[in-house]
Amino acid sequence: MKVAELGEFGLIDLLAKMIKDAGADRLGDDQPIIGIGDDTAAWRGDTAIQLATVDTMVQDVHFSLKTITWQELGWKSLAINLSDIAAMGGVPRYALVALALPVATSVEAVKKIYEGMIEAARQYRLAIVGGNISRAPEISITATVLGISADDKILRRDTALAGDIVAVTGYLGSASAGREMLTKKLKFKPEAMKYLRDAFLHPVPRIAEGQLLVKHGITTAIDISDGLLADLRHICKASRVSAKIDISLLPAHEIVKTNLSKKAVNLALGGGEDYELLFTGRAVIIEKIKSEISCPVTSIGEITAGEPGKIDLRDAGGNPVKVKNTGWSHF
Amino acid sequence: MKVAELGEFGLIDLLAKMIKDAGADRLGDDQPIIGIGDDTAAWRGDTAIQLATVDTMVQDVHFSLKTITWQELGWKSLAINLSDIAAMGGVPRYALVALALPVATSVEAVKKIYEGMIEAARQYRLAIVGGNISRAPEISITATVLGISADDKILRRDTALAGDIVAVTGYLGSASAGREMLTKKLKFKPEAMKYLRDAFLHPVPRIAEGQLLVKHGITTAIDISDGLLADLRHICKASRVSAKIDISLLPAHEIVKTNLSKKAVNLALGGGEDYELLFTGRAVIIEKIKSEISCPVTSIGEITAGEPGKIDLRDAGGNPVKVKNTGWSHF
Repeated sequence: MKVAELGEFGLIDLLAKMIKDAGADRLGDDQPIIGIGDDTAAWRGDTAIQLATVDTMVQDVHFSLKTITWQELGWKSLAINLSDIAAMGGVPRYALVALALPVATSVEAVKKIYEGMIEAARQYRLAIVGGNISRAPEISITATVLGISADDKILRRDTALAGDIVAVTGYLGSASAGREMLTKKLKFKPEAMKYLRDAFLHPVPRIAEGQLLVKHGITTAIDISDGLLADLRHICKASRVSAKIDISLLPAHEIVKTNLSKKAVNLALGGGEDYELLFTGRAVIIEKIKSEISCPVTSIGEITAGEPGKIDLRDAGGNPVKVKNTGWSHF
Repeated sequence: MKVAELGEFGLIDLLAKMIKDAGADRLGDDQPIIGIGDDTAAWRGDTAIQLATVDTMVQDVHFSLKTITWQELGWKSLAINLSDIAAMGGVPRYALVALALPVATSVEAVKKIYEGMIEAARQYRLAIVGGNISRAPEISITATVLGISADDKILRRDTALAGDIVAVTGYLGSASAGREMLTKKLKFKPEAMKYLRDAFLHPVPRIAEGQLLVKHGITTAIDISDGLLADLRHICKASRVSAKIDISLLPAHEIVKTNLSKKAVNLALGGGEDYELLFTGRAVIIEKIKSEISCPVTSIGEITAGEPGKIDLRDAGGNPVKVKNTGWSHF
């Protein structure tokens, strides 16, 4: 059935029921005062710091229906917003989803998009409390995610200090390697293809890790969406500092090194969409975090006094390195 | 200059500066902890009931660049969300704006869109604290507006009772008369054309009026976006009641009656986008509100016990009336 046949209100009823049946309309036993189906969502306020973020995925700009499944699209549309909450060290709470759909979209496809969103909502204790559905020439999903601070502290971009170690969670370049594999139809071993596909289409927001950083007194973090260089530049500009990075330390995954060896460094520097956390802090704190966190954490360089936003890339021998691809920009 | 030349981050910097210069990044002296330019916006929590709503305007679906100005587009993209906050009787607080733009969009156009948004933000004490910019084949604006309850009470859809009077603020059908005038290039007297254009492209959210309803103990309201019949049906379904409406009482504006006389009733019933408040309550309360409110309020019928969602239309003589156009659906 096409969405045009079901109609706007029929579609809203169907999606509201899916969300309710999955328990994704509430936070455990804590029901919002008003969920889907009124003029606004409504819930009892908190006195914690409130966090709010919005991100859009547009067909043929951020995703291609040739490579992404409907469930992956739903998951990723929430995961990229959850990653912003993670980058503040926050606790996700509520989501509103604005869906734009061509009239010929099948109801089955929309249900699968919501299955993916519900999977993310359940995994990260997020309640989907509202949204909007519009007609449009192509599919786009704009999700707004609201959260609160953990422990009344947040991670910002403007607090990096000269002498801080620069560190990242997980691996860099895997998502863009996955994008390259899918768009160029590259063939690798099945487990490598599964890893790269998931890295690109099923990113994992570092929610628990962000909260752990806050707990250990880290104050500076960003999630890597535009690419390491672009996102590190955001921190350095906001903090009015420079950074020196040793590219031999960049944590590329074995699968990326094996299958896209020549490109591994460039993908790690500029590929983007890894949704890992990039953070800075005193060496002793970073070492403590490494011993407690459940994912790899790699120190890749340090914050230096200097021209705000300048990134100095060096090889293992300390020689300067120049690269071309420095991150994703929408225009 | 095209947005492609300025680049994503250049555009964000420019818009952030415009918003800051206009004071639209904060609520009076109350600055958010983090505004535009970090992973999320952050502000100190309230213990009031929190409200959140999202709405999208898509080019050639919700607006045409042949008829709307950039400023009107910016204004309307926030006003339609503010109207949802008004329909809860709430106080608007924060906005996040997700903008999707073709690469050839001029920077001047984007600035004017933000001028319109800033005008609405200043008028209704709303802080624009975050957003997102994406490339897309056509322009779309998805605004999320967050607010709080006034007086810890809200207006809902599911509390209408048989015997309640059904009332509306302002005039019905003016917005859709404006749409008709613009799309069919109808010519009227200048002051009539100005009124109809503004009704459609510069809607005024009933924020103060919504709060006044709450203060007087009204509990049931919705804003008229889909059209009177469709929106009254939303209330009746949620409240499991019917309604009886006297179409001779529908408040059409003199300009609509004079210039589109034959269509006035149909536009009032089904035209939509008036963003007036439709509410129900005891007759004595409605009369009290009429004497205190600064806009027209008209009683148009009553809530009755009966099939949930059924709307019984009558003429001045009490005879049943049938109409075709019963409201806007997106598919």
